[in-house]
Amino acid sequence: MDNERWQKQLDFILKIDEEKNILRQTHLTHHGRRENDAEHAWHMAVMAYLLKEYANEEINVGHVMFMCLIHDIVEIEAGDTYAYDTEGKKTEKEREEAAAEHLFGLLPEDQRDELHRIFEEFNTGSTPEARFAKAMDNLQPLLLNNSNNGSDWKEHGISRKQVEGRQRQTRDGSVPLYEKVEEILDQNEVKGNLKHED
Amino acid sequence: MDNERWQKQLDFILKIDEEKNILRQTHLTHHGRRENDAEHAWHMAVMAYLLKEYANEEINVGHVMFMCLIHDIVEIEAGDTYAYDTEGKKTEKEREEAAAEHLFGLLPEDQRDELHRIFEEFNTGSTPEARFAKAMDNLQPLLLNNSNNGSDWKEHGISRKQVEGRQRQTRDGSVPLYEKVEEILDQNEVKGNLKHED
Repeated sequence: MDNERWQKQLDFILKIDEEKNILRQTHLTHHGRRENDAEHAWHMAVMAYLLKEYANEEINVGHVMFMCLIHDIVEIEAGDTYAYDTEGKKTEKEREEAAAEHLFGLLPEDQRDELHRIFEEFNTGSTPEARFAKAMDNLQPLLLNNSNNGSDWKEHGISRKQVEGRQRQTRDGSVPLYEKVEEILDQNEVKGNLKHED
Repeated sequence: MDNERWQKQLDFILKIDEEKNILRQTHLTHHGRRENDAEHAWHMAVMAYLLKEYANEEINVGHVMFMCLIHDIVEIEAGDTYAYDTEGKKTEKEREEAAAEHLFGLLPEDQRDELHRIFEEFNTGSTPEARFAKAMDNLQPLLLNNSNNGSDWKEHGISRKQVEGRQRQTRDGSVPLYEKVEEILDQNEVKGNLKHED
């Protein structure tokens, strides 16, 4: 075993442990505490496997799962940017790119380049796998939030239009799952969990 | 989309959210709080991908990752059994089997059977993928614990012999990684982090 290579892999493995402390705005089911990025990534990856039959295009689900698992590592340094935080979104790309350089840079060069490439693939949605991973990234918090009677939307005063803007990414990955999203939004609109916009 | 099928998948997806509240004995790096099962599964799956070059046998890493992601779902109902809890270990298999029946039983039949099969594959270590997943299951907490100067071993008064008994499973999946484990145990023995046994 190449000791220098192992040491770099080990440094990265221990560093990403910090993702377990990056909190999101989403709350766990049963009106639980806030979810962290590692839990979110785990949940998305399991969902990708279980829901792969609904993907719009043929996908390599192993690749989708790994993309789900690593897509938020940059938030260890860039922080979580809430989906509806328009100010934060302006600087998100720049902050995340700097974090990617630094964090993936802990790995041996070949793995640094590979993870950087997969992270870019996810961000640009340039492959069927990236589009399905993005669908999971949007569907997972929606399902948790719906199980809590839309409490995260209510807390932040989010409108249906805002959610639909975001959930277009679910449609790009899976039309059948997007239809379920629309049903869920209909129900939450009736219940008044989504703000009305003129 | 088959609505009954989707509803079963959704029930399972929401149920496994509870894995985020199953606490382990391992503590996060930087002497952090206790880790939960979903975080552990996420970390193991990322490690499986990054360390696949050290597997003893040729593996399908997508299958290893999914096995890592689901191997602890049964603990939602069976609870976490600490690796060195000899009393708990006596009933672990029975408790986990009952939980597997019930939890995987939430899924559509084909997926219920598939997840049950993958869970059994992991437990019996019957394939190269299962042996490598088990290596990750043992290596991940060891690396966290080592980063905390062996605090989990000290808290529970664990001996090197106990750890080595457990880490045989790491060797079955990866001899090079087991050699690193031995180095780590040597260092912790010198520091007095592992109890001496006559």
